[in-house]
Amino acid sequence: MMQISVIPGDGIGPEVIAEALKVLRALDQRFALGASVTQVDLGAEAYLRDGAILPAAAIDTLAHSDAILLGALGDPRVTPGILERGIIVALRTRFRQPVNVRPCKTRPGIPSPLRDVGPTGCDFVIVRENTEGLYVGTGTSAHTGQQTAVAVHTSITTMTATETAVRYAFTLARQRRRHLTLCHKTNILLDAGQLWMQAIERISTQFPDVDVDYAHVDAMCLHLLQRPQRYDVIVTDNLFGDILSDLGAGIQGGLGTAASANLNLDGSAPSMFEPVHGSAPDIAGTGTANPAAAILSVAMMLENLGHADAAAACDAAVNNALQQVNTSGTAAFTRELGDAVVAEIG
Amino acid sequence: MMQISVIPGDGIGPEVIAEALKVLRALDQRFALGASVTQVDLGAEAYLRDGAILPAAAIDTLAHSDAILLGALGDPRVTPGILERGIIVALRTRFRQPVNVRPCKTRPGIPSPLRDVGPTGCDFVIVRENTEGLYVGTGTSAHTGQQTAVAVHTSITTMTATETAVRYAFTLARQRRRHLTLCHKTNILLDAGQLWMQAIERISTQFPDVDVDYAHVDAMCLHLLQRPQRYDVIVTDNLFGDILSDLGAGIQGGLGTAASANLNLDGSAPSMFEPVHGSAPDIAGTGTANPAAAILSVAMMLENLGHADAAAACDAAVNNALQQVNTSGTAAFTRELGDAVVAEIG
Ligand SMILES: CC(C)[C@H](C(=O)O)[C@@H](O)C(=O)O
Ligand SMILES: CC(C)[C@H](C(=O)O)[C@@H](O)C(=O)O
Repeated sequence: MMQISVIPGDGIGPEVIAEALKVLRALDQRFALGASVTQVDLGAEAYLRDGAILPAAAIDTLAHSDAILLGALGDPRVTPGILERGIIVALRTRFRQPVNVRPCKTRPGIPSPLRDVGPTGCDFVIVRENTEGLYVGTGTSAHTGQQTAVAVHTSITTMTATETAVRYAFTLARQRRRHLTLCHKTNILLDAGQLWMQAIERISTQFPDVDVDYAHVDAMCLHLLQRPQRYDVIVTDNLFGDILSDLGAGIQGGLGTAASANLNLDGSAPSMFEPVHGSAPDIAGTGTANPAAAILSVAMMLENLGHADAAAACDAAVNNALQQVNTSGTAAFTRELGDAVVAEIG
Repeated sequence: MMQISVIPGDGIGPEVIAEALKVLRALDQRFALGASVTQVDLGAEAYLRDGAILPAAAIDTLAHSDAILLGALGDPRVTPGILERGIIVALRTRFRQPVNVRPCKTRPGIPSPLRDVGPTGCDFVIVRENTEGLYVGTGTSAHTGQQTAVAVHTSITTMTATETAVRYAFTLARQRRRHLTLCHKTNILLDAGQLWMQAIERISTQFPDVDVDYAHVDAMCLHLLQRPQRYDVIVTDNLFGDILSDLGAGIQGGLGTAASANLNLDGSAPSMFEPVHGSAPDIAGTGTANPAAAILSVAMMLENLGHADAAAACDAAVNNALQQVNTSGTAAFTRELGDAVVAEIG
């Protein structure tokens, strides 16, 4: 038995989650997963209705599940960041999810905007520290009348969280092509840069079989355009990971196929799986949203819950479906792709 | 008469600056600029020899010039950031250069790694706030024995500096395609995000003819891959500008043609012009470095000093030279391209 909490959320969230759940049911039948799904009503509607962003009852339901599947959050009617910080960032912290894993992989039928991604395409994973850096707070301001005069943000980096992310990244690299790239901005953020370097140096002694290199975050953007196939595992800070994973999504052909896993590594709370895309209010209700990222998040969830066979079947079904239903942007795309994935699973 | 201070710096810095100065001499002859050049010896060699990073005498020479041309700084023998922060970042602040202008433009003969940059190529400018954000300090740490346990960085954003950058960006947009994009991370950095939004709102009332939109920095990376030709002027924070301008350089075909201007806007001190690339110690001495970025920085300098004709001639000469000497990466490329630009200027 596995107990899955689902937060459909805002905008296209509910639309892509509906397809992801269809796929989960199909996988459940084929692989006898024993999945049981509970919907958790969080997001703009609930907030505007009840005035609470993350009520205790919701936290309780989420905490008692084996995994969380999240659609997307954010709504033009709500101050920017209130839902994103108040739910997504809050859950990453509360459920001790120090690592955010974001695979970037070119897939058949999804063209990369890059002319050259190498003969076999690119396939790298961003391991993002998920709880610290500039994400620790909302900031402080001094005001002159109605206007903000000065805004101050604090970025905190601890060795504990950094080592956890770095160790996870080394372990992952060992299972893959044994190449790890640290990405930071050590020439400006001297103290945090030194901390990351120390973490890499210390943990690398346990992974002598993994090659390590380093790139400044600015240079990394350039390198990813020039030779994305060169990268295997990239470990980085929370904000840099946020930025690089959208760039990675761009390289693989868009957010439509970008899934992610916020991993709790000590079993103290559930992990959370979500597409990298946002709530995209501009296309909500049009039926055009690509559900592949949400479906691939289900695959990452199943892999993490110990169902590697179901995860692999899901991933393969998405690849096949994407080649059949290559009508991204058309009115029934969301449902058609979901149906095609279900049909592939059989 | 114009008094130019030149800091050749480290790595490939002196090599590309030698070509830039050849071109400046050619332009001087053709346009009777009356340029007089003073070398300022800063960088790894001077630091390792004298123990001073930015001595008072150097500051004095720089302060008394009309403009500064900088090659590149940074050397593997020196702790990362010591020279970059101690010279580049220090001069941007000391000489009140609140705006860093970084044009991103596809050029003939320089292929973009993107398959589609639109029928006429992309041509956008990043206006980067140049003195604040996370660049204000080097950080603070707590230690456990030899190891850093916690690193803390403070990001400061003032309305004064932000409005200066925003006003400059609006003015530039009005001279171009009248489209301004604010790029920030308002859903996480709530206070600084609000400050930037307020600056945009207030100043936009003076520029009703300029269209304004907004993108989160993560989404911006994706959009720049998908439709770079959509952008005209992008105004952003110091760190985001650092990251986006390397991405922009990638899109236009590499750092080889990426120039920048650190502008002092009130005449209180000189502006500083520099290629976006670093000192690239790995290729220093090979003669392969592309001097175009340094030469185009000379063009930006001349434009800023009121010699639009010389600047335009320099820019055009670079375009022509790049099509003739298309042997980037070969052993005499640095010199050959410089010679070709000089020949074009005639
Ligand atoms: C919605 C937002 C808070 C979030 C982030 O910044 O982490 C998103 O961009 C992501 O990448 O998951
Ligand atoms: C060398 C470094 C300090 C600098 C920066 O971060 O601003 C560089 O990357 C740049 O973009 O000019």
